[in-house]
Amino acid sequence: TTPCPSVCILLLLCLGRSANGGKVLVWYTEGSHWINMKPVLETLVDRGHQVTVLVPSISMFMTSDQSLFHYEAFNVSLSLEVFEAFLDKFIHFTIYEMDYMNYFQIYSKFMDLLKINIQFSLKFLDGVVKSETMLKKLKGDNYDMLLADPIFPGSDLTADMLGIPLFLSLRFSVAHNWERLCAQLPAPPSFVPAVLSKLTDKMTFSERVFNFLFYPLQDIVMEKCIWKDACEMMGNADIWLMRTYWDFDFPRPFLPNFKFVGGVHCRPAKPLPKDIEEFVQSSGDAGIVVFSLGSLVKNLTTEKANMIASGLAQVPQKVLWRYRGEKPESLGSNTKLYDWIPQNDLLGHPKARAFITHGGANGVYEAIYHGIPMVGIPLFADQPDNMLHMKAKGAAVTVKFNQMKSEDLRDAINTIIRDKSYKESAMRLSRIHHDRPMSPLDEAVFWIEFTMRHKGAKHLRVQAHELTWYQYHSLDVLSFLLSVFLLLLLLLVKTCRFCFRRCCCRRKTKRKAE
Amino acid sequence: TTPCPSVCILLLLCLGRSANGGKVLVWYTEGSHWINMKPVLETLVDRGHQVTVLVPSISMFMTSDQSLFHYEAFNVSLSLEVFEAFLDKFIHFTIYEMDYMNYFQIYSKFMDLLKINIQFSLKFLDGVVKSETMLKKLKGDNYDMLLADPIFPGSDLTADMLGIPLFLSLRFSVAHNWERLCAQLPAPPSFVPAVLSKLTDKMTFSERVFNFLFYPLQDIVMEKCIWKDACEMMGNADIWLMRTYWDFDFPRPFLPNFKFVGGVHCRPAKPLPKDIEEFVQSSGDAGIVVFSLGSLVKNLTTEKANMIASGLAQVPQKVLWRYRGEKPESLGSNTKLYDWIPQNDLLGHPKARAFITHGGANGVYEAIYHGIPMVGIPLFADQPDNMLHMKAKGAAVTVKFNQMKSEDLRDAINTIIRDKSYKESAMRLSRIHHDRPMSPLDEAVFWIEFTMRHKGAKHLRVQAHELTWYQYHSLDVLSFLLSVFLLLLLLLVKTCRFCFRRCCCRRKTKRKAE
Repeated sequence: TTPCPSVCILLLLCLGRSANGGKVLVWYTEGSHWINMKPVLETLVDRGHQVTVLVPSISMFMTSDQSLFHYEAFNVSLSLEVFEAFLDKFIHFTIYEMDYMNYFQIYSKFMDLLKINIQFSLKFLDGVVKSETMLKKLKGDNYDMLLADPIFPGSDLTADMLGIPLFLSLRFSVAHNWERLCAQLPAPPSFVPAVLSKLTDKMTFSERVFNFLFYPLQDIVMEKCIWKDACEMMGNADIWLMRTYWDFDFPRPFLPNFKFVGGVHCRPAKPLPKDIEEFVQSSGDAGIVVFSLGSLVKNLTTEKANMIASGLAQVPQKVLWRYRGEKPESLGSNTKLYDWIPQNDLLGHPKARAFITHGGANGVYEAIYHGIPMVGIPLFADQPDNMLHMKAKGAAVTVKFNQMKSEDLRDAINTIIRDKSYKESAMRLSRIHHDRPMSPLDEAVFWIEFTMRHKGAKHLRVQAHELTWYQYHSLDVLSFLLSVFLLLLLLLVKTCRFCFRRCCCRRKTKRKAE
Repeated sequence: TTPCPSVCILLLLCLGRSANGGKVLVWYTEGSHWINMKPVLETLVDRGHQVTVLVPSISMFMTSDQSLFHYEAFNVSLSLEVFEAFLDKFIHFTIYEMDYMNYFQIYSKFMDLLKINIQFSLKFLDGVVKSETMLKKLKGDNYDMLLADPIFPGSDLTADMLGIPLFLSLRFSVAHNWERLCAQLPAPPSFVPAVLSKLTDKMTFSERVFNFLFYPLQDIVMEKCIWKDACEMMGNADIWLMRTYWDFDFPRPFLPNFKFVGGVHCRPAKPLPKDIEEFVQSSGDAGIVVFSLGSLVKNLTTEKANMIASGLAQVPQKVLWRYRGEKPESLGSNTKLYDWIPQNDLLGHPKARAFITHGGANGVYEAIYHGIPMVGIPLFADQPDNMLHMKAKGAAVTVKFNQMKSEDLRDAINTIIRDKSYKESAMRLSRIHHDRPMSPLDEAVFWIEFTMRHKGAKHLRVQAHELTWYQYHSLDVLSFLLSVFLLLLLLLVKTCRFCFRRCCCRRKTKRKAE
């Protein structure tokens, strides 16, 4: 008997595994970034891939679903308390303090916080790349790719160390810094507003001046915060999975390895829990307002909470408010507080009329998905920018958290519900969102699997990566052509002068002779 | 009885029509452009849309399949003989004469031919836009969109006159002129080679200088050939359906309303006619070589035909040569001449080893689709560029039509068959071609239907359209900032000089006093 059959079966099994089931290593992430990434990972598992998630010893979000994914835990020499305290400090700064500071104070405080953030990030990173056992384990596991949200740095270094393709998924980087400088994404400042610039794609002259200066200024700030080498390594990423689309973002130039999957986590509404459904149904024709300031903001000052509650009490809708603080005194009978709400299912409910949101990208996309107009109370990070996008597209109004009064909130809610143009705009964005060749989730999964099948996606990589910045902008060519032109001009002038002189000389000689 | 039921049915029928069956008006086109467009139109008909094709009274290709599409004939005050004679003259110039001319002669002859081409194009266009009955008819028919290959000009004007969305499908325009200047497609000359420049995306310094100059030079030439206003109107196009993809083209920046559907006409091979199949099978393990110089080249000189035939006679494969001229004396027993060959089915046959082609985009894409390496004998238009792409990607070698000898052709065929790297590269391109989220045909149909459903695709349109060229490149912002900088510098210098003088004066006064 020959060993062939068993060898063949083994071979088939091996081929079967590499063809259908890949091994995806997932970089640690946190908060809304994790919420956004999970549906993609779940789909990958459904499709027979093995998903292994790197989880730091201190993690706020990445703790559940132990059964679905493999988890690879690593040590971070930092306590969860210290980390959460830092996060609270950061949030407090951006929500409450920033509005009352001058630019220099903001810059100085921001840089201080960023420095601590880098220190912490390095501690996280050390847990992976400085641990020999961890690296050996990861190398031995033969992953097909590393999937990462670059907000937690070091995935590029790790992918490089493991020699596997890097696949990035991000909402944005400050001033599109990583996309522009590392991935060569073109961003003409004349019609591509820098992230956090609070500008749209329609800019006046002075706004264009501001935007033009905003890019390099942020580049300088970010230069201090990211490792210089990181940019080249990050530039090796095969695919940049952007969590936006043209329902949300302003149209702009992009590259073949940029894929837009905004709303990758959205899904049809499921039935509500019985008590919530009863409260929702009690709203009658007026419908409901869904209100959440996101998962990071837990408490408000008593004053703020009362002001908000009194604003909510004045609208005819029933309000579902996700709020974990103490019950405000001015809370109306139309408002109910919840520790947690099934936000997506509420927004997809036929009775949903409006969404009051801090403007986190995930929530905004759920509202787009279900076509619900928004009242934005943006707090920090990309939230002001996100709400600006929705406002520019006619699907939202915004109120300022620190300046708003009860009436402002009430008027904002009434405006977006009574003025039908907001609902129409929201529905238009919803149609754009749904009417695309492939759902965001399917597209994300397709390109992840593509990267595993082809061990990267080098055919989508522009040659610009091999050019210096002055070569990219043809400045060397321009200098050369200018030099040639000046040389020719000089030659021409010299020749003319020479001829002219000879002429004059001759005349003079003639005259003298005469 | 109420009239409701019948009204309801009528309403449902109307809704049904506008939701499922749209009315597509197709601009007249010719040759390979028509071959490429037909499969898309057939799919549209299959999906319940009504397709009406504008057909000039003189047409070489658009005559068949009267049953599938509606045809709207219009008069052209030009005879088919004159038109075909012009075409032959143009082809003869580019294939036989150009190689023996200097640049000035080429430019002068080319401009002469272009001028005639414009005159003819205008005669075609007049048949539509200057015919009142035709315009009235078209307006009355209430089309949902106009689908056009802009190589035959005037579709933008017509769409504007009819007030319907314009949907363009093209392989390229000279120096990406229309895409760049009308559609705002970014094309940094440092890594995006101009079409017809015979450059790849990897350029040396001198090549970058050439490319940098090639864009504006071609812009100037084209400025003479297209109507100035046309650019703005062409810029109104909702979608630009480009007949390339990253299996064929070099990765480059693009815009949200650019969709890449190269190979839209490709399909799996069908069984061959019996006689051809028998000849193919007689090739044994050596396999077959498929040879065609395209539909426009009908005859070669006797000398040329003999030289080619003798080259083909020296390879071990069986050769199927699509050739309508007289049978060359040196024709080997391994070669058979055909008036017409089922090219796609032959390239998809397991015995296909190589494809000898003039490098037309349609044929090249069929070779990519089936993963067949190519010998290119490029003749004119985009053919040299197409073959350069395939050569750069390792799937082809090229020979020069005017300089080649029998041995060159024989060696080229032997090289791409014996050196396995060519087959591997062709297979790699084939994998890239097939492994995409949606087939090119499905994607083309999706965006056509999208344009009808949403009456355009304005959400994909960049704001760059509203900027002048100097605003686009932020030159006004730069000038302003430079002025401010110089003003400040001047102020600083003046202030310093003033202070310095005061200091000096004081000292002088002091000294004098001393």
